[in-house]
Amino acid sequence: MKKENIMIIGAGPCGSLLALRLAQLGYNITVYEKRPDLRNTDISAGKSINLALSDRGLKAMQMVGVTDKVKELCIPMNGRMIHPNQEENFLSPYSGLEEEYINSISRTDLNALLIDEAEKMPNVSIHFNQECLSVDLEKTQASFQDYQTKETYHKTADLIFGTDGAGSALRKSMMDSHEFLFSYSQDYLTHGYKELSIEPNAKGEFQLYKNALHIWPRKENMLIALPNLDGSFTVTLFLAYKTGEHNFNNLTTPEKVESYFKEFYPDAFALMPNLGKEFFENPTGTLGTVKCTPWQSYGKTLLMGDAAHAIVPFYGQGMNASFEDVVVFNEALKKHQGNWEDTFNRYEKMRKKDTDAIADLAIDNFHEMKAHTAAPIFQEKRKLETAFEENTPKEYASKYRLVTFQEEIGYAEAMAKGRAQDKAILQLIAENKINNKMSLQEKLNLVQEQTQKILTEKDLLAY
Amino acid sequence: MKKENIMIIGAGPCGSLLALRLAQLGYNITVYEKRPDLRNTDISAGKSINLALSDRGLKAMQMVGVTDKVKELCIPMNGRMIHPNQEENFLSPYSGLEEEYINSISRTDLNALLIDEAEKMPNVSIHFNQECLSVDLEKTQASFQDYQTKETYHKTADLIFGTDGAGSALRKSMMDSHEFLFSYSQDYLTHGYKELSIEPNAKGEFQLYKNALHIWPRKENMLIALPNLDGSFTVTLFLAYKTGEHNFNNLTTPEKVESYFKEFYPDAFALMPNLGKEFFENPTGTLGTVKCTPWQSYGKTLLMGDAAHAIVPFYGQGMNASFEDVVVFNEALKKHQGNWEDTFNRYEKMRKKDTDAIADLAIDNFHEMKAHTAAPIFQEKRKLETAFEENTPKEYASKYRLVTFQEEIGYAEAMAKGRAQDKAILQLIAENKINNKMSLQEKLNLVQEQTQKILTEKDLLAY
Repeated sequence: MKKENIMIIGAGPCGSLLALRLAQLGYNITVYEKRPDLRNTDISAGKSINLALSDRGLKAMQMVGVTDKVKELCIPMNGRMIHPNQEENFLSPYSGLEEEYINSISRTDLNALLIDEAEKMPNVSIHFNQECLSVDLEKTQASFQDYQTKETYHKTADLIFGTDGAGSALRKSMMDSHEFLFSYSQDYLTHGYKELSIEPNAKGEFQLYKNALHIWPRKENMLIALPNLDGSFTVTLFLAYKTGEHNFNNLTTPEKVESYFKEFYPDAFALMPNLGKEFFENPTGTLGTVKCTPWQSYGKTLLMGDAAHAIVPFYGQGMNASFEDVVVFNEALKKHQGNWEDTFNRYEKMRKKDTDAIADLAIDNFHEMKAHTAAPIFQEKRKLETAFEENTPKEYASKYRLVTFQEEIGYAEAMAKGRAQDKAILQLIAENKINNKMSLQEKLNLVQEQTQKILTEKDLLAY
Repeated sequence: MKKENIMIIGAGPCGSLLALRLAQLGYNITVYEKRPDLRNTDISAGKSINLALSDRGLKAMQMVGVTDKVKELCIPMNGRMIHPNQEENFLSPYSGLEEEYINSISRTDLNALLIDEAEKMPNVSIHFNQECLSVDLEKTQASFQDYQTKETYHKTADLIFGTDGAGSALRKSMMDSHEFLFSYSQDYLTHGYKELSIEPNAKGEFQLYKNALHIWPRKENMLIALPNLDGSFTVTLFLAYKTGEHNFNNLTTPEKVESYFKEFYPDAFALMPNLGKEFFENPTGTLGTVKCTPWQSYGKTLLMGDAAHAIVPFYGQGMNASFEDVVVFNEALKKHQGNWEDTFNRYEKMRKKDTDAIADLAIDNFHEMKAHTAAPIFQEKRKLETAFEENTPKEYASKYRLVTFQEEIGYAEAMAKGRAQDKAILQLIAENKINNKMSLQEKLNLVQEQTQKILTEKDLLAY
């Protein structure tokens, strides 16, 4: 069988994984990346530099045979360390099962590993500093500009994959094309983010508990921190642009920023001597969701990863979803009989419902995280779920566990079941149908019955 | 008080109404319209040339004092005349109240009337054949090209209103601006549309019942017809692009089109001798929904009408919603204290939830119209609702009546109540809680109780 020449635009985590996998399958791969080679350059400043790698992403690492190497880069996080203001911190485990945890990993290190592995293949070549300007969809021809020489030129291939992120040039070319109907959405949250840091202490030790994702929920805004291998934490502030008492619009001086942190995040503030400097040196990131369809054009080009479905970070699933794309595409490709249009359509049919679901779940979580401290009914729900998971982890999985640790089901199914469970518990609490005379098993039975009822009713009404 | 110079881009129904209203309020208005003056030109071929004007649109006509003139252009439609294939036609009234009907009106005639009225004002000037290319948002400066001379030039104003339709140049300039976060979506349906016609007979008479909106529902596809003052009907075919047995992709010859019509729409086909010709001469229209936010930039430019919220035609509310925009803007302007940014923000806050709702309702109706013939539970629901409306029209209003005839409530409220009612009735039917031993009033009480329960529960869960 003919092995096509495949061009991949973008050598981020998704593009480099895709290059590696398609090379393993024997295709000839040329990758063009806009940025310099991150293995030789510090390009991380102000970019989200560590991420949560969990089961869906790890399944993709397994597929390409790099699990052991990736594990060396991982710091397990067993739960959320919640930092209330004026109260004791507490650890809220991600799961009732010990083996279910997520991993903090450096985006740069992981990306570098995947680029290294891809470049080891004889049928992969990667060109850095080459920015894609646009793609002629019918001719499968991309135009590039060399960042250093400023020279522009065209390259053609049998197929072009766009893994060029949320600002994808391939996607823009699809949107500009009037030949086919391209449905598209970009939605920004009212909040932006700022990367900050907590350095290791003089002995090189972690200054916060190492094996957790730290969260300082403050209703309107939120701070989080993830551990790095060097003993530091990457800290991210999620802050409103202009609403509420404190926002990017009015925190305009180092003094104002410091006084805000001192009031709302005092324990973190004590560990952040460079706060004022970092806040104004690092760029403010936007939080956007991108959805679109179709992902392919003319059976010759295909969007994958953030280029097809950029999501907000509140479920820790952005990179995992992009990695899972490659696993699902690998499945679609197994049935490939030389017809790429069918393969691309099959892939989108298998995948889009799930990437739509994780996009929506991630936005839900943004609102949940902002609001949940204020809602007693939500706290009661979490208490019940935690009891189920600690005592009968195999009989009950919360929405979070379904999404994060049950990679054998898709995001869409996890969302449907997780939302029905949430609704069931909230209804039962609101109607006082759960009381303390009941055993935990009786409560669980009630929740499961009610969940099933909600799911059945939903099917019924979808006439 | 200073009366600003206001530029309006687009002299369609919304732009010409807005020009008239703002002129009545004393502002100085200059309108630029891309197309030639429709009062002197036939530009309607293949465009949707008649529309359903209902209570929300009429309220706007009342506001500017043109109701009597508009009424002369209207043909009342009291209900839907359903044309099943192989069965008797039947009239399904829009409401249990005689005074509740919608009106077929020529888009061109109505637009011409509004342009005439606007031009009568000493403080309005309208320039045709001037296409807006882009808008400099901060400078409030628009660039135009003259269609005839091809000359390009700039014009500035104190404020710029974009009423330039679904493909709005002002909206594109907002989208291209990276200064502020512009959330945007465009969604296409899998179907397109084609305008066709049924001419009057030799005596100049209507060949179908005059006072109805005719519908030929065929599950996947659908034909509709609205009457015109000259005795003709404008017929619109809604057809899938490529799915199902018959679609735009495979109806490639006049013979195929005729044979499709003969099989599926025989009574209409008998009245359409020019079908084959019209089908291939008229363009295929797309069916898209556009949503975006914010509608304003820098307190200087504002999107209104389709430019801000293009919707699909299945609720007959597109023009009504755009007209209602001007009514709501008029309200927002009453509180105007010289701060246009506040005024624009207040307007969007008052309005966006409602235009989002009518966009969603219109898509719901597309699916409902396609599928409802196949679903017995839906038929049973409609039968019950019709009984309520015929016997107790003041105690019950279906979703359709709430949306179409109750202009005192917004679309969002109509949607919430209408959907809860639909869900309540479907649940009651599915659970066999409605039976024939009950009086109609007992059934109505049950539906109202269940509706209230659903609405209360929804509030509860929105923690």
